[in-house]
Amino acid sequence: MWAELRLGPYLWPMVESRTHAIIVSGGSGKRMGTDTPKQFLLLEGVPVLVHTLSIFHSFDPSINIVLVLPPDSIEHWMALCKHYSVDIPHTIAEGGSERFYSVQNGLKSIGDSEGLVAIHDGVRPLVSRDTLRRCLEAAKLTGAAIPVLEVTDSLRFCNENKSKALNRKDYVTVQTPQCFSLSAIREAYNCSYNPIFTDDASVFEAKGASVQLVDGNLENIKITKPGDIELAEFFLRRRI
Amino acid sequence: MWAELRLGPYLWPMVESRTHAIIVSGGSGKRMGTDTPKQFLLLEGVPVLVHTLSIFHSFDPSINIVLVLPPDSIEHWMALCKHYSVDIPHTIAEGGSERFYSVQNGLKSIGDSEGLVAIHDGVRPLVSRDTLRRCLEAAKLTGAAIPVLEVTDSLRFCNENKSKALNRKDYVTVQTPQCFSLSAIREAYNCSYNPIFTDDASVFEAKGASVQLVDGNLENIKITKPGDIELAEFFLRRRI
Repeated sequence: MWAELRLGPYLWPMVESRTHAIIVSGGSGKRMGTDTPKQFLLLEGVPVLVHTLSIFHSFDPSINIVLVLPPDSIEHWMALCKHYSVDIPHTIAEGGSERFYSVQNGLKSIGDSEGLVAIHDGVRPLVSRDTLRRCLEAAKLTGAAIPVLEVTDSLRFCNENKSKALNRKDYVTVQTPQCFSLSAIREAYNCSYNPIFTDDASVFEAKGASVQLVDGNLENIKITKPGDIELAEFFLRRRI
Repeated sequence: MWAELRLGPYLWPMVESRTHAIIVSGGSGKRMGTDTPKQFLLLEGVPVLVHTLSIFHSFDPSINIVLVLPPDSIEHWMALCKHYSVDIPHTIAEGGSERFYSVQNGLKSIGDSEGLVAIHDGVRPLVSRDTLRRCLEAAKLTGAAIPVLEVTDSLRFCNENKSKALNRKDYVTVQTPQCFSLSAIREAYNCSYNPIFTDDASVFEAKGASVQLVDGNLENIKITKPGDIELAEFFLRRRI
């Protein structure tokens, strides 16, 4: 013990900070028209969430994965892990009533003070390793990076009163993983919830900081609607 | 001849105005990384454009289809029609350097002064008959209707100087067919080209008129990128 402590100060400068992944999975099954929360639906015979965790683990087996789940789903997830022989190391944090609180809980559960963190939607099982690498590399340089795609259809603003054509070239759609310096995003999340927080980048920017946009991958869909599972299976098969 | 003319005034009030479809197909193959313009790529063994025309024809066999093609593609299209035994009645108009001019030429080629017109991208072979029906019915009531989808990913404004998170619920993506009263859209297109015209609805609105938003269909993708053909084939197979 003492020897280890003595070695510490000499080893520390050689040790790179760990990379963390917070996989946010707070959804219910309502939008899919099913009783099974979408993160547990089977994709090629395996729960969506297992695919998602596998990507992060295979990208970097030393990554520290924190899975945020609704409290009433944790037992079910443990049973699924046993049934599907999931041997991906991860810890579990409890989700909150809004995605904001779930991420906040995930961040609180990480003991480290330095390193990078990738915050990712559990229902995006098709993020590519290239997207993850691009985001982490950019976040390492700039402190914050998110994957985006250009808008291919025309885009229009609309609310109850008006509707107005926009130039789609001025807009991008935003995916996850949204990657940050752990200490910086932790500081950003040290605030009260605000409905204008649409994703982690918007929380980060609320402090006046800016995020780097990097290329996402088209297949990185969010499984939310009926038919999305078949679409994800199509993308999976095409990738092979 | 005389008899026909005499019958005319009595018959006219009984005859519904025809419905027209302008299928705009001006693209080159550049974005697909192929030499074949995307409208001529094979989808389940048949050119994309044949699928598109088939939908309009099967929806309403009496629809007046005007196909707008780049002048240097017309001969090739005629050869394809022969090769694939295409027996869908349609007329051909020459495309221009911008989509705006192509639609303008399509409108000029229609002799009628009344009726409805559906303006559709040739490279959207997966528009559903339901979408087409919804748009035409709404346009009949309001003068102008376009199919839209809600934005599922986060959305962000970005230009060279800044990037800003938006509330995706205030935005929709816009597809085609964009449907109008023929006389009203003809009047709207009687103007000079402006780069702010991103679609037909934006030309229509430039005169102060407004358009009705109706539900589009998710599969109604625009074939523009490599991989889109396989995705369209997946959607086609799922529909069967």
